[in-house]
Amino acid sequence: MEFKEKLAAFVARIDSAIDKITPAKNARPARIHEAMRYSLSAGGKRIRPALVLASSELFESGVDALPAAVAVECLHTYTLIHDDLPAMDDSKLRRGVDTCHIRFDEATAILAGDALQTLAFELLATRYARDPKLAVELISTLSNTAGSQKLIGGQMEDILGESRSLSESELEFIHLNKTSALIEASLRMGAAIGGANGNQRQLISEYGRCIGLGFQIMDDILDATSDSQTMGKTVGADTAANKTTYVSVHGLQESRNRLAALTERACEICDSLAASFLKQLAGYLNDRTH
Amino acid sequence: MEFKEKLAAFVARIDSAIDKITPAKNARPARIHEAMRYSLSAGGKRIRPALVLASSELFESGVDALPAAVAVECLHTYTLIHDDLPAMDDSKLRRGVDTCHIRFDEATAILAGDALQTLAFELLATRYARDPKLAVELISTLSNTAGSQKLIGGQMEDILGESRSLSESELEFIHLNKTSALIEASLRMGAAIGGANGNQRQLISEYGRCIGLGFQIMDDILDATSDSQTMGKTVGADTAANKTTYVSVHGLQESRNRLAALTERACEICDSLAASFLKQLAGYLNDRTH
Repeated sequence: MEFKEKLAAFVARIDSAIDKITPAKNARPARIHEAMRYSLSAGGKRIRPALVLASSELFESGVDALPAAVAVECLHTYTLIHDDLPAMDDSKLRRGVDTCHIRFDEATAILAGDALQTLAFELLATRYARDPKLAVELISTLSNTAGSQKLIGGQMEDILGESRSLSESELEFIHLNKTSALIEASLRMGAAIGGANGNQRQLISEYGRCIGLGFQIMDDILDATSDSQTMGKTVGADTAANKTTYVSVHGLQESRNRLAALTERACEICDSLAASFLKQLAGYLNDRTH
Repeated sequence: MEFKEKLAAFVARIDSAIDKITPAKNARPARIHEAMRYSLSAGGKRIRPALVLASSELFESGVDALPAAVAVECLHTYTLIHDDLPAMDDSKLRRGVDTCHIRFDEATAILAGDALQTLAFELLATRYARDPKLAVELISTLSNTAGSQKLIGGQMEDILGESRSLSESELEFIHLNKTSALIEASLRMGAAIGGANGNQRQLISEYGRCIGLGFQIMDDILDATSDSQTMGKTVGADTAANKTTYVSVHGLQESRNRLAALTERACEICDSLAASFLKQLAGYLNDRTH
């Protein structure tokens, strides 16, 4: 199967599982479930849950990775809902549609985000209860990644750093924790479900850091070089806001070199794991224009 | 040991464990950890974590219930931080001190609440990893209780109902889910840690519903009858806001009768479980003046 067909097949399975295993729209109280489902289906590219599935399929346990993929998407969606709030990034649009607090209201958006985080852990605990050791490993990985020293810590430093220029190490802390950590965790969770051995897990983690950091560098390159029409959002926003980016710290050429090196290493790892989908994905993320 | 000494001993153990097993104040990024610790130590009565400890000690597994007690307090504290936000109840003071968003700012309070929820699940997954079946049961219980159909659902309906009068069944939904559910879950988690059998767990759950609902009825009675000085907060607030309460629906005498019946049933259960601390606690919650 071609890469794009394979990705579309993953996305279809994820969308269907989200519909099936999250509370119904009319479950009481309806408003919170409408809001949760609204944000879950508001145009996400499903990269993280696809990584859970793709990683699990490299190995042979036969355990279903879909509930974990949905849990990761719930966790990711909760962080987006809260990041968009007026007290945080104050975003009215995301992926071209109203953000949760615009479509509903702020209180509902706060609670819907809270509930999506809870749901992520509930899905892992209940859907993997037959293999409690695996369930505990998945919950440990996701909670450690989502916590105050990684994902939330990255968002905190990003907000604190908005009004001033950042050092190289501050920028790296934010990139590694705000974006890369959950990408790496998605891959590690898939590998755990698939039954990967220690060496395979290490390689999968390294691949995750390569594409996670690469993804962030590509974002900064696109913001500095693309035009608004291609991106579907305001570009040059980082420069205009005097925001420290990979490009502002390292320059455009060095950023491109670093991205190429990260992609090369990611592809090497994929060769050693016979992971053709993940290899194509690394190229895909690298080649994107928005 | 007398009841108050026993309660004080529980609280001391809980306070010390909170200090030891939550991230240090200066862990990076410091601001989020300061905010988490600020709210965790802002004068909570520690009733829920004490219930975890007291319930576990009725049985004999010897497994340490302190990490679960701390997890429950983290979960409870996160809900208070978010409930106090301007978009929700807009409270500037809680227990006589500044709420988290007043002491820090709104973005920090949102993130600190988020991180305390994550930490609750991380503590359960990592501190009970040696007994993964127990860990999964604790996480299932807490996540189910904290989710969109119970705790968060109760808060959602409470907010939606603020501007109109509620039916008896709507009021009961809010009471059962917003307050009683986490009290019951605390007791069930303690019982699971202690190794209680099925019948004992059912009794403990019923005790939890009795004192949880009783606690809420007592709150409504106090609001209708006490004076501001004794309560340490504005009273008569519910009446002034035309808020539906147990007293406004059932009248004062019927509320007192219902509270007495719930307390009596709670005490009966304690007799059958030889649970003297929990029996005294039911009386203590019933007799409180604020």
